[in-house]
Amino acid sequence: MSLDLLDNPPPWPGGARCAVALTFDMDAESLVHLRHGAAAPGMIGASSALRYGPRIAVPRLARIARAYDVPLTVYIPGWCVETYPDTVRLLAGEGHEIGHHGWLHERPNTLSPADEATVLLRGIEAIEQATGARPRGYRAPAYAMSAETGRLLVAEGFAYDASLLGDDVPYMLDCAGGSLVELPSDYALDDWPQYVHMGEFSMAMPIRAPERAMEVFRAEFDAAHRHGGLWVSVFHPFVSGRLARAEALCGLIEHMQAAGDVWFATMAEIAGHVAGLVERGEWTPRREALPFWSAPVEPLVTP
Amino acid sequence: MSLDLLDNPPPWPGGARCAVALTFDMDAESLVHLRHGAAAPGMIGASSALRYGPRIAVPRLARIARAYDVPLTVYIPGWCVETYPDTVRLLAGEGHEIGHHGWLHERPNTLSPADEATVLLRGIEAIEQATGARPRGYRAPAYAMSAETGRLLVAEGFAYDASLLGDDVPYMLDCAGGSLVELPSDYALDDWPQYVHMGEFSMAMPIRAPERAMEVFRAEFDAAHRHGGLWVSVFHPFVSGRLARAEALCGLIEHMQAAGDVWFATMAEIAGHVAGLVERGEWTPRREALPFWSAPVEPLVTP
Amino acid sequence: MSLDLLDNPPPWPGGARCAVALTFDMDAESLVHLRHGAAAPGMIGASSALRYGPRIAVPRLARIARAYDVPLTVYIPGWCVETYPDTVRLLAGEGHEIGHHGWLHERPNTLSPADEATVLLRGIEAIEQATGARPRGYRAPAYAMSAETGRLLVAEGFAYDASLLGDDVPYMLDCAGGSLVELPSDYALDDWPQYVHMGEFSMAMPIRAPERAMEVFRAEFDAAHRHGGLWVSVFHPFVSGRLARAEALCGLIEHMQAAGDVWFATMAEIAGHVAGLVERGEWTPRREALPFWSAPVEPLVTP
Amino acid sequence: MSLDLLDNPPPWPGGARCAVALTFDMDAESLVHLRHGAAAPGMIGASSALRYGPRIAVPRLARIARAYDVPLTVYIPGWCVETYPDTVRLLAGEGHEIGHHGWLHERPNTLSPADEATVLLRGIEAIEQATGARPRGYRAPAYAMSAETGRLLVAEGFAYDASLLGDDVPYMLDCAGGSLVELPSDYALDDWPQYVHMGEFSMAMPIRAPERAMEVFRAEFDAAHRHGGLWVSVFHPFVSGRLARAEALCGLIEHMQAAGDVWFATMAEIAGHVAGLVERGEWTPRREALPFWSAPVEPLVTP
Repeated sequence: MSLDLLDNPPPWPGGARCAVALTFDMDAESLVHLRHGAAAPGMIGASSALRYGPRIAVPRLARIARAYDVPLTVYIPGWCVETYPDTVRLLAGEGHEIGHHGWLHERPNTLSPADEATVLLRGIEAIEQATGARPRGYRAPAYAMSAETGRLLVAEGFAYDASLLGDDVPYMLDCAGGSLVELPSDYALDDWPQYVHMGEFSMAMPIRAPERAMEVFRAEFDAAHRHGGLWVSVFHPFVSGRLARAEALCGLIEHMQAAGDVWFATMAEIAGHVAGLVERGEWTPRREALPFWSAPVEPLVTP
Repeated sequence: MSLDLLDNPPPWPGGARCAVALTFDMDAESLVHLRHGAAAPGMIGASSALRYGPRIAVPRLARIARAYDVPLTVYIPGWCVETYPDTVRLLAGEGHEIGHHGWLHERPNTLSPADEATVLLRGIEAIEQATGARPRGYRAPAYAMSAETGRLLVAEGFAYDASLLGDDVPYMLDCAGGSLVELPSDYALDDWPQYVHMGEFSMAMPIRAPERAMEVFRAEFDAAHRHGGLWVSVFHPFVSGRLARAEALCGLIEHMQAAGDVWFATMAEIAGHVAGLVERGEWTPRREALPFWSAPVEPLVTP
Repeated sequence: MSLDLLDNPPPWPGGARCAVALTFDMDAESLVHLRHGAAAPGMIGASSALRYGPRIAVPRLARIARAYDVPLTVYIPGWCVETYPDTVRLLAGEGHEIGHHGWLHERPNTLSPADEATVLLRGIEAIEQATGARPRGYRAPAYAMSAETGRLLVAEGFAYDASLLGDDVPYMLDCAGGSLVELPSDYALDDWPQYVHMGEFSMAMPIRAPERAMEVFRAEFDAAHRHGGLWVSVFHPFVSGRLARAEALCGLIEHMQAAGDVWFATMAEIAGHVAGLVERGEWTPRREALPFWSAPVEPLVTP
Repeated sequence: MSLDLLDNPPPWPGGARCAVALTFDMDAESLVHLRHGAAAPGMIGASSALRYGPRIAVPRLARIARAYDVPLTVYIPGWCVETYPDTVRLLAGEGHEIGHHGWLHERPNTLSPADEATVLLRGIEAIEQATGARPRGYRAPAYAMSAETGRLLVAEGFAYDASLLGDDVPYMLDCAGGSLVELPSDYALDDWPQYVHMGEFSMAMPIRAPERAMEVFRAEFDAAHRHGGLWVSVFHPFVSGRLARAEALCGLIEHMQAAGDVWFATMAEIAGHVAGLVERGEWTPRREALPFWSAPVEPLVTP
């Protein structure tokens, strides 16, 4: 199919046809503590599955990254950064990017602005203490960016956000106080709908074979590769890092590398590239102003 | 299989074997505003996914329509018509049909008759202002036509409805005050069960690869083509217009065009064709009287 | 695989290797009236999908049955029998069996014993009036047989029940007052989990291609054919009778007929065959006493 | 793919490349009694499906185990042990392992410590009476091990636990009072997400063809085989023991046996092997201390 389906893709470094960022959200037990509170310490089974992320999956994923020479970007709630310092050190030490992912996986849009700011600062502090550097990027837990998030990220000097789903290529978010690069993904690149069946999170879904999940992720890559887009996974170590799925992920990377002309990068590198293009006037991205709505839509009638 | 499974298919123009209407419901953020009210402005992530519809997907779908020379029919809530005027102008300007889809995606059967009328009139007004013409067709949000909808559509001079699932070919709805062409579809031609996983709408479903969704849509087409039926998609730009899925949609159109003898038309064109057949006595459609029931069924016992 | 996995299959007529009963539950709008009460008359969209059953699907299924020379068994709530007399007449007139399926699809185990008896009698009456004969078989709506159902069925002279899932071959239910042939099926032979996505019934499931559903149904047949079992579908006209799925059903029947040595029969014929075997001492079925439990299980601790 | 993805796999007996334990949870009607209490005796349909487990499926699975010469491990709630003594005798008599699975399938983490102890002791007693030996292993119903479970298992002399999902190879649980071998599995090796659609348990999922489920289970085996891991199914006789699925299970075992160098063992044998390696200093497993958390995580903010 030779029809051009993507408007205004950015030029990628070295003439690459698309950019690929292997990104993971390392939530560990934050999910169970946030949702179940006092009951969480007694949820040993679910916790064991979640701890598999930092304990088993991340070292495996780091090994895969080394073997295929591709960088990872891992978004980590501050509480997890402090709870799993070795895991963070391993990642940072091998040059992978550590991004901000809240404190205990709180959904920003369920918090007051003051509480959202508290969470943001505390998460920055945790990452800075663990890695020696402030995070450059942010991903809102559960895609739940609030009306305030953009403004707060700009104020704290973040280079990019990775929470939204509004395009197939990078775009700019204009917020109170300044702008931010948005590096969007899509629910189709999240591993949760492919693999997660956990009563603790009200997820009664079929679990699909790694090859079925790869059909979904590969179709997204093939399209991005044909049209010059951006492929950003929203994987989770405790999900996609399980043994058989990690093998399938290797197969996916091999598929991407065989396709050729792919720029594998961290999200911060992509954001930096985009910012450079914009500064040098080499590419004009689409812009969206945040928040989208300053007030609820007035209903015409009330159901 | 040579067994004839479809009674009384209408003759299609030019001896075509079946009719195909590529229809979309462009709901944009109406879904989140209706359901989440005051919380909606803070739901930036979900909103970004929904805005992808008018911003990114519709222009892409229009391009596909141009490339394959097939018309689209797009049902748009009035609030979306007013919120995304450029998108509506683009569609109307290229000859695609704009249909009525409520004001803010309200389910008619959750409204009082007066409120339903208010919504209907306001939606007509929005479309008329944007396109210079009243809509000819209507699709109830969420398939939720009420007992009053038929009567109201007749009173407002609609040519057809596209909300029901009662047949594989067009039929007539007899309502208080007059009749209406019904152009039915089926849940199997909705893209939501194939692709949507969004906590904001309590949709915890697996997301399937474009090729798996196409298996479903293609099977429906193949059957319609063999038996003389009508294929009416109920797609959504923010869902089926994502890059990899749009590619798969191109493949589906190519499959249809390769099958040959397919009449690609807008819904208004199909309704006009059907009305003409009926007026000229060239085809006698099945008729259903609306509403189906004037009162609840008296229970024999109470569980 | 030559391992024998089925104990004590009955001898089938003519040396057939397995028995196949194509059974359908024709619920029509009973589902929406039972569940939604006063709101049901306003649920036109869902109703149109449900009415497709008696109006469009059943005539189509009858035609398929004729073409392939296989009998159908259709369980119909009494209210539907009275609401769709032509559909019932069509089925009965072509020799298909009409079975009992409650009055308005009430789950027996949500009713008092007196109410369950009322429903049973009223359903018998409806079928007797429509067909001139009392039903010989019963299927509880939603597999929800109560502790009383067996006793009531025996008292009313039913020959068999088709509500349970306790074996791969017929067995006997010993109830207060007498015995009954049980002709079991399995959830895997229900078309609902394959195809139904309807918010009105809280079914947020993916819809699968007909070929994917056939993988499930065919695997069950192949196993039954290899091992001498019983294949009893729990299909619904409004679901499996849609055009593309009806085509796939034709393919399934062709697959069965190509396998050879299959006894296609109504459920009443199968029950009669089984009863004859038992009476003549030619086969000794497994027996289960109903109800399974006379009282709740005393909990050891209370969660 | 030659990349090594598994750290520190244990040496398996006879130089086998991986260990396989075919394990089942035989819950029978405990599920319905626990969840539905007084309503359970009236739930005949669901009960018939659940009873299929001990009545039909277990003898079939035992036959398969004999034919392929592979041992089974079956976890059985004490109430089921007492309710289905013949089934337990059959299994124990053929050398299969009977493991502890609560009394009535209570989730330990919903019980007080005293109640959890009561359940544990009563389950031990039931198994000891039925088999003449105390159980050596335990699997918490619904993966719901509590903060107390490990301590209790150690106190009662259990050799291993099979409730967790924290690794791909055995590891040690350090609990108050001593240690325990953990033989972990994964949700991907549970048959419930593949096959169960039962309203009684709020499971509205598609049912997949046996071959689709086998894709999932086989991928896990292939990975374990390549990397030296442990494959532990969490199947249920009433689910995976149905006829067509049992056939597919035979196919899976054939696939495993064809792969070669697989150690098929009971869980107790695997735990014994692991304990021996540790005692003899031939392998140093990873260790996790239980419980993971002594108190809830203090939230930074409150959503």
